[in-house]
Amino acid sequence: MTNHPSVLFELSEAISFIHSRGWCPGTGGNFSVVSSLSPLRLSITPSSVDKESVLPEQFIEVDETGRLLSGSGKPSAETLLHVAIIESRRAGCVLHTHSPWNTALSLACPEDRRSLKIYGLEMLKGLSGVATHQHSETVPILGNSQDMTALSSEVLSVLSEQPECHGFLLRGHGLYTWGADVFEARRHVEIFEFLFETVGRLKSIGAADGFFTYS
Amino acid sequence: MTNHPSVLFELSEAISFIHSRGWCPGTGGNFSVVSSLSPLRLSITPSSVDKESVLPEQFIEVDETGRLLSGSGKPSAETLLHVAIIESRRAGCVLHTHSPWNTALSLACPEDRRSLKIYGLEMLKGLSGVATHQHSETVPILGNSQDMTALSSEVLSVLSEQPECHGFLLRGHGLYTWGADVFEARRHVEIFEFLFETVGRLKSIGAADGFFTYS
Amino acid sequence: MTNHPSVLFELSEAISFIHSRGWCPGTGGNFSVVSSLSPLRLSITPSSVDKESVLPEQFIEVDETGRLLSGSGKPSAETLLHVAIIESRRAGCVLHTHSPWNTALSLACPEDRRSLKIYGLEMLKGLSGVATHQHSETVPILGNSQDMTALSSEVLSVLSEQPECHGFLLRGHGLYTWGADVFEARRHVEIFEFLFETVGRLKSIGAADGFFTYS
Amino acid sequence: MTNHPSVLFELSEAISFIHSRGWCPGTGGNFSVVSSLSPLRLSITPSSVDKESVLPEQFIEVDETGRLLSGSGKPSAETLLHVAIIESRRAGCVLHTHSPWNTALSLACPEDRRSLKIYGLEMLKGLSGVATHQHSETVPILGNSQDMTALSSEVLSVLSEQPECHGFLLRGHGLYTWGADVFEARRHVEIFEFLFETVGRLKSIGAADGFFTYS
Repeated sequence: MTNHPSVLFELSEAISFIHSRGWCPGTGGNFSVVSSLSPLRLSITPSSVDKESVLPEQFIEVDETGRLLSGSGKPSAETLLHVAIIESRRAGCVLHTHSPWNTALSLACPEDRRSLKIYGLEMLKGLSGVATHQHSETVPILGNSQDMTALSSEVLSVLSEQPECHGFLLRGHGLYTWGADVFEARRHVEIFEFLFETVGRLKSIGAADGFFTYS
Repeated sequence: MTNHPSVLFELSEAISFIHSRGWCPGTGGNFSVVSSLSPLRLSITPSSVDKESVLPEQFIEVDETGRLLSGSGKPSAETLLHVAIIESRRAGCVLHTHSPWNTALSLACPEDRRSLKIYGLEMLKGLSGVATHQHSETVPILGNSQDMTALSSEVLSVLSEQPECHGFLLRGHGLYTWGADVFEARRHVEIFEFLFETVGRLKSIGAADGFFTYS
Repeated sequence: MTNHPSVLFELSEAISFIHSRGWCPGTGGNFSVVSSLSPLRLSITPSSVDKESVLPEQFIEVDETGRLLSGSGKPSAETLLHVAIIESRRAGCVLHTHSPWNTALSLACPEDRRSLKIYGLEMLKGLSGVATHQHSETVPILGNSQDMTALSSEVLSVLSEQPECHGFLLRGHGLYTWGADVFEARRHVEIFEFLFETVGRLKSIGAADGFFTYS
Repeated sequence: MTNHPSVLFELSEAISFIHSRGWCPGTGGNFSVVSSLSPLRLSITPSSVDKESVLPEQFIEVDETGRLLSGSGKPSAETLLHVAIIESRRAGCVLHTHSPWNTALSLACPEDRRSLKIYGLEMLKGLSGVATHQHSETVPILGNSQDMTALSSEVLSVLSEQPECHGFLLRGHGLYTWGADVFEARRHVEIFEFLFETVGRLKSIGAADGFFTYS
């Protein structure tokens, strides 16, 4: 019921790549891959580990309440958000990053808006199931919180209201995205970070209108 | 009629370099090298492959209609654009990248303009046949489309109208550039990405006038 | 009374990482780890060494007056600032970086302000003892000086007035941060540089209000 | 009268580092180290070589007229600028880079100004002989030209008028800097590129006044 070593190795490589890009500085971010859906079991990075190089044997195994089943280390409180995403989306892998641009765009969101919308970019096709650049991707922006039980309920509710979204932002905190497996989830991270950087640069030259809006 | 392994290795290295710069995130971008001009045969990256590390044996061989001749994987629909460029320019290698700055500058183009123009920069001399910084490079900007047959016709027509250009942009999508061989095409990628980043930064400090315009 | 080789190796790796990020260009920055608190002894990078690759045997051992005890090379004049921080905070490791964003934000500080304040960002939790994003981190900004005796007195006084701070900036010069050990101090560097870059990018798109202020 | 292999290896490493930072894209930039002052002999990168990895055996040996003495490849026309700098400054190593920020700042210079001035930054102390951040560094900006004979005369004249400068910019072209040896010249590249990036970012947030001016 645990993941095959090659899957953990693939996740380990994805995390090193994400760290090398500056998208999970310090011990930030957390990353999981499902080992069993019923009962729900996942391998996840433990709390407070440097993400430059996470070895396959450092992942811990937890259940759907975030309880440690095997491995050494403390499960992150955010494990509950991973569980919410997996249950809502049948995701096989969940990746959570902190990049300067994803943080900046979530903070730049006016208080009375709840999402950002990107459209007209070819790279949107990197998101699973999107077949044209004329797609409009709405990324929910949730208020940040330290109460993970409340936040996971909110995540469940937002994901059920917006069944088409491929990721969401926590305000001033970071991106959560996911995929059927490590390969797809990692691709989604790269796509979202590209989209956020491109929009940020467009805003820095005063030209984001028509491709980006808060809604 | 297939490429020598050392040519595929050189293309493989060029792709890894381009990915390391963040110019083809996710599985984005596609890259080809001609193995025969008559009949037209090319080795090209298959669809949906991560560009961090494409092994020489992963390239597929296709003909001028984009049909798979050998190798495993699905030819990208954009193969037709590679073919159009090769036929129009007698290019030996075609590289297609997605970078934040090339995407941002193509999106910042006013609706009624069809190209961007850069002049007065020494690095323009990195483009084949350009002997002075007083050169003015016009980069056509084509509307993006998912209809590759129509788009490849448009590419052929633009390349015939603008026989001097070294690359073109698809709006909100990315850069296509080419060269006699992998070495020259890769140099063109580096030159264009440098030019776009420099122009973008000039715009971010309000100083691009005189060196850059949409036309 | 000297540090264990594995500690110096860890510091060496941290410096290479910091250099690879562009946060200590040239021979800039200096980095120390305490080997004994009483009497005070520290291993520190000698002056004028390239920070791309500092070998464990290149660190020099100095006392609390900055006098060379062992190793070859000249102690940096800034050793006195390391000593002041260690004495004031009981720090085990002190890291001093120069990045474009930390330098830019310290220079952008109005003449009559003495600190910058960041609040509402999840990554503040990467600072030791911070449990919520609702934390407000005040980073003192001291005037730069070449008189290290005077500056170290000022550092002592600022650290005693602001016992909660995790780092300070020297105006137009760089960041000093510290931690109980190399691991924690390195995490603080990554967190601060992330915070400064995020704030800088927010300012570049005109959206830093509410999360950042000079005070 | 040729350089020791270890010197060429050090130059080779410096070029790879500079390329990895994106400061000499494509085959841009050229780099030399003096092997003899009288008669003047230098090892220099040949024209049109990719700067990602220049092997020690790829450097060519030329005399003070830029004539090839040994090695294979074509001397760059810019060799004459290296010679002018070496003769004027008794430099042991000359490095010429193209970065987005150095290009952007030289282009942003008003037509009627001939230099940029940076002051008040600690990192100025990384320039040889500078002992305080209160130093003001004036970087001459020369008009770009393809006539290397005329340009080298102009370089000689500017270097004689401004005997304190550590580098100069060619407008829209790039930076020339130098040092007693490869180590010092490479440090000067890192320092200048840091200063240009910091000033560029200050300008992007509207805060460069007081630290930067065109004169």
